[in-house]
Amino acid sequence: MTESAPVAAIIGASGYGGAELVRLLLRHPSFVLGSMCAHRRAGEEIAKVIPSLRGVVEGEFQPIRPETLECDVAFLALPHGASAPIAAILRERGKVVVDLSADFRLNDKAVYEEWYGSHGAPEHFGKAIYGLVEFHREALKTADLIAVPGCYPTASSLALGPLLAAGLVEAGGLVIDAKSGVSGAGRNPTPATHLPESAGGIRAYKPAGTHRHTPEIEQMLGELAGEPIRLTFTPHLVPMSRGILVTAYAMAKPGTTQEQCMAAAKERYGSSPVVDVIDDLPDTNWVRGSARAHVSYRVDARTGRVVAFCSIDNLLKGAAGQAVQAANVRFELGEGTALRDPGAWP
Amino acid sequence: MTESAPVAAIIGASGYGGAELVRLLLRHPSFVLGSMCAHRRAGEEIAKVIPSLRGVVEGEFQPIRPETLECDVAFLALPHGASAPIAAILRERGKVVVDLSADFRLNDKAVYEEWYGSHGAPEHFGKAIYGLVEFHREALKTADLIAVPGCYPTASSLALGPLLAAGLVEAGGLVIDAKSGVSGAGRNPTPATHLPESAGGIRAYKPAGTHRHTPEIEQMLGELAGEPIRLTFTPHLVPMSRGILVTAYAMAKPGTTQEQCMAAAKERYGSSPVVDVIDDLPDTNWVRGSARAHVSYRVDARTGRVVAFCSIDNLLKGAAGQAVQAANVRFELGEGTALRDPGAWP
Amino acid sequence: MTESAPVAAIIGASGYGGAELVRLLLRHPSFVLGSMCAHRRAGEEIAKVIPSLRGVVEGEFQPIRPETLECDVAFLALPHGASAPIAAILRERGKVVVDLSADFRLNDKAVYEEWYGSHGAPEHFGKAIYGLVEFHREALKTADLIAVPGCYPTASSLALGPLLAAGLVEAGGLVIDAKSGVSGAGRNPTPATHLPESAGGIRAYKPAGTHRHTPEIEQMLGELAGEPIRLTFTPHLVPMSRGILVTAYAMAKPGTTQEQCMAAAKERYGSSPVVDVIDDLPDTNWVRGSARAHVSYRVDARTGRVVAFCSIDNLLKGAAGQAVQAANVRFELGEGTALRDPGAWP
Amino acid sequence: MTESAPVAAIIGASGYGGAELVRLLLRHPSFVLGSMCAHRRAGEEIAKVIPSLRGVVEGEFQPIRPETLECDVAFLALPHGASAPIAAILRERGKVVVDLSADFRLNDKAVYEEWYGSHGAPEHFGKAIYGLVEFHREALKTADLIAVPGCYPTASSLALGPLLAAGLVEAGGLVIDAKSGVSGAGRNPTPATHLPESAGGIRAYKPAGTHRHTPEIEQMLGELAGEPIRLTFTPHLVPMSRGILVTAYAMAKPGTTQEQCMAAAKERYGSSPVVDVIDDLPDTNWVRGSARAHVSYRVDARTGRVVAFCSIDNLLKGAAGQAVQAANVRFELGEGTALRDPGAWP
Repeated sequence: MTESAPVAAIIGASGYGGAELVRLLLRHPSFVLGSMCAHRRAGEEIAKVIPSLRGVVEGEFQPIRPETLECDVAFLALPHGASAPIAAILRERGKVVVDLSADFRLNDKAVYEEWYGSHGAPEHFGKAIYGLVEFHREALKTADLIAVPGCYPTASSLALGPLLAAGLVEAGGLVIDAKSGVSGAGRNPTPATHLPESAGGIRAYKPAGTHRHTPEIEQMLGELAGEPIRLTFTPHLVPMSRGILVTAYAMAKPGTTQEQCMAAAKERYGSSPVVDVIDDLPDTNWVRGSARAHVSYRVDARTGRVVAFCSIDNLLKGAAGQAVQAANVRFELGEGTALRDPGAWP
Repeated sequence: MTESAPVAAIIGASGYGGAELVRLLLRHPSFVLGSMCAHRRAGEEIAKVIPSLRGVVEGEFQPIRPETLECDVAFLALPHGASAPIAAILRERGKVVVDLSADFRLNDKAVYEEWYGSHGAPEHFGKAIYGLVEFHREALKTADLIAVPGCYPTASSLALGPLLAAGLVEAGGLVIDAKSGVSGAGRNPTPATHLPESAGGIRAYKPAGTHRHTPEIEQMLGELAGEPIRLTFTPHLVPMSRGILVTAYAMAKPGTTQEQCMAAAKERYGSSPVVDVIDDLPDTNWVRGSARAHVSYRVDARTGRVVAFCSIDNLLKGAAGQAVQAANVRFELGEGTALRDPGAWP
Repeated sequence: MTESAPVAAIIGASGYGGAELVRLLLRHPSFVLGSMCAHRRAGEEIAKVIPSLRGVVEGEFQPIRPETLECDVAFLALPHGASAPIAAILRERGKVVVDLSADFRLNDKAVYEEWYGSHGAPEHFGKAIYGLVEFHREALKTADLIAVPGCYPTASSLALGPLLAAGLVEAGGLVIDAKSGVSGAGRNPTPATHLPESAGGIRAYKPAGTHRHTPEIEQMLGELAGEPIRLTFTPHLVPMSRGILVTAYAMAKPGTTQEQCMAAAKERYGSSPVVDVIDDLPDTNWVRGSARAHVSYRVDARTGRVVAFCSIDNLLKGAAGQAVQAANVRFELGEGTALRDPGAWP
Repeated sequence: MTESAPVAAIIGASGYGGAELVRLLLRHPSFVLGSMCAHRRAGEEIAKVIPSLRGVVEGEFQPIRPETLECDVAFLALPHGASAPIAAILRERGKVVVDLSADFRLNDKAVYEEWYGSHGAPEHFGKAIYGLVEFHREALKTADLIAVPGCYPTASSLALGPLLAAGLVEAGGLVIDAKSGVSGAGRNPTPATHLPESAGGIRAYKPAGTHRHTPEIEQMLGELAGEPIRLTFTPHLVPMSRGILVTAYAMAKPGTTQEQCMAAAKERYGSSPVVDVIDDLPDTNWVRGSARAHVSYRVDARTGRVVAFCSIDNLLKGAAGQAVQAANVRFELGEGTALRDPGAWP
């Protein structure tokens, strides 16, 4: 650990998550943004690749060289699988690693292999702290390998976590219906993200237990519920750039009221600088461009169900914002530093 | 019934549902589009109010005069409450009435009054046939008062109806998560439909049993299930003009397979000229501008849930298209007449 | 020429222009849609490739075999360069060819080669009739090779053509500022069409005489003006799927009034089944999904400029609709057949 | 001038421009955000009216009481006409006034009255400094009444200003074709801003010298050209929330090159913390949510025209950002303070 300002490096800085890491770290008063590295786009001018940075950042992306990279903390925004070997090298060199990929999120090796195949750094598997700060704040203070949660698991856990932890709902029979902006699919153009075929329409994809975020959500919620969880998760692609709205359905335990749900969430998130429990139903536009999250609850007395809502910006609280929040905790820089600002609305 | 081509009138032709009725009836080879009537916009040039009709239609909207209106069938696209008294007059004059409002959709007077207040034509309450053609085709052949289903009930019933009718899923514990384009909110501008605050974001509204379509869905599905149904329904506003996607969740009965679900739907919709059971997950863009509907199913073996999907254009199969389909059946004009065309894709 | 209904083939049916040709010809009462051919997607199920055709069309795309293709007329919706050799074979077999590519649009070989390189069927170069029906109706009646205009040249010519032909504006100093939906870029996904980077923003591309439609517009307008034209053309990419709006600027000749401009256009388009001169300013939403075009004019008395507006659906009046309109003229089937319908609004 | 941090008040804080003023001043390290006042929404919870402020700001909007308002500088984000009387009171009390309305932008009383009617504070008319910082930096240092330019005049002046000031283009014959996001129409819902009728389409409005920003653009550009200017200005409404792209056309003087245009702009904007001259064509998405502006030029050698491009966020460099930039200059707080950050891209 440095005595002066810790130096941060971003590896995989040319993607959408990387671009937001650059933006957050540029305005961060305590981290020094040292290196911005990219694989395919190494050598290209940063402000050409991330066009909002014209006039803001000069220079080119550096190649990814974990063996010699100078930094105190490295943020890895790389594809699943590509991350683990680089994280391993950095960890062996004593660097703090904040990994935005799925490589270190799961605890159970068998589950990991079922969903992602063989692991690229098995000696480090299981050693990460899952970086959902609102639930793992203490452990993150000493974490040297942080697995930043996926965007859907973040919104799902923020919505349902307080209810399960407080025993207000049944752990069985959960349904999570999630709606994501298209940036969640990454920067690579595909027919599914081609504007003429995606603007003006909505569709589900990878439903019924086929999306890789399913076991991650089940792991986090199971930990909070204190029992294994199997749930139904359906992601949807919405014609917008950013944002995730989770609408989650849980059976209320007898006597559970809306007020109790709101109170449990307020209790849980009272110490968070970025999660707000609100009376109105969350709208992703209200957190667009911001690291904040909005949570709310309704109880359907006719059916005994709690409907839990959470909206986040998938690239911020669902990726780069969460990563910086966890790193803030780890380096004792003030958990909300560089993250409290509202987005530009409308 | 006339021997020559039946004459159709549209009452409330200046709204979005009315505009689509005009478009469908203009291209209909068997109905003659007689009168286009409007309340507030009577006397205004039709092609100024519905700007896609420049060069297509001449003349002005006529005022609404049910006492003297000449027609064989009147399509009523009026606000809830405004429809019933006009329908009553037309029925008493022996006209066939196809009502797109909610005024005649519910069977139980007490339920109607709970959700909508006192009824404007109580002597006709309960006398309508609910115009979801795929489930009520026979009864519609002799119906003189047809209640065209709401957009959400249409998509919900198309998705879940075949499963409940075939006993493939439990009637209890249903969850319907629905996503609608903004035209579903009608033509009146509000903050919720103001582009800067609605484009680029998604939000839920009227959740947890507070949306008026809830009892209508429960009535239709209860009829198919043969038992009363209470379900959880959450509508969402999606940043697009048109389309509804329903993602519905039901507990599979033991042994129910995805193939059985698909087969039950194919059996049910084999006779429909507009409902297709498709292998891929439905996308509202694929039915935009068309009276068609797409249905598909997935079984989540991990949780025992069936996920049922249906996409429609809310203004067509969810309103005007459904109305014309029912009228086609009533007047024996070929159920799919003027309705089979695909929309303009992409 | 056949005595019975002419048989149409579509070559390149899997792209956006091809998909609209399929839709229009399916509803065409006089053409029989015989073959739907594709290059890369031959053998694939049509309704999987054009998903709005589920339940509408069965079968697979056929491979492109111009040597043996049976038809009376072939619509070619192929990339520039790929079209000419196939058109040559079909022409030599006596088929009428309606070519939607740029391969036969230009009259001057040197200009063609400057913008597109060497021509793929030089023996047919210069033999096509340019298929802007409103200006070349007579010649199209006997045309066996029809070059369907580009989308920008169509909207630009419809806006400025009547003014130049009537001598109401100067031929020098024209500026055409055009705005297009993203489907104009075709079906191939690129960073420029990736929803996260294109939704919610607007930009120009290929300005200042670098877009290939520039010489085509100059050729058409020069013909109408009776003198060579050099103009400034700027295309823009707008965050919408479909539609082109042209805003064109011309210096009024002394005494030219707005009424004269409107009258000249009404005179020109009085015989067109799809072009309307409207008082209001055109909106691309009003012609979305329709083969129609809207034209209007304003005179800026302060500066002596005429501002000419034209809105079309780029895939219809700007491509497939125009092609069918020209073919209707050629086969004497009624110029507006299958083209008069309004689009689904809103 | 205060010795301690100057206190800022926002009057009209509940509109879109006001909301962005709140956001910028909240993060401003030197201004203290004192009062947030609103007219119709006084007494309402701020974070309910500006929903991105949940968890960020507490309290209610105060009523507008200029007679007693405590502040050093007041930002007025009020409708045209409503601003002048309040500005007058504040000025008479010695407060610095930064007015975002049009009330003090024009220098010529007759021109003002022609476009806006009689003025609400004639004794202050003509006493404001026009707050386009890049052109009026010196004068702003001592300005007590600052008229923040309109969004279109800002983008138009940034694009054409350097060329006219450097004598690279003719002052006659200018054409400005501008494209704006819908937030430029304000927060009041209207049919033109209703999502179903505005998403997915583009249209012009108030063309041919009928938009009120026309004289303002002419005034600013005339000042730079050193001669009166009459130009053609056409605003368009684009289906996006935010952003203005100006595409402006000017006749190059003999010998003018693209390099000279770029150099003139770089010279002019070298001292600006927020205006960048870029090689690529500007895209409004690249400045969305940011107070920055992008400018670029192309010369069309075929026609002798310079095409000038400028993209801004209409609510930031086109309103709130510009206001804060001018106030930063006035209070010597560092011109770019709180304004340099890039927006959230994509």
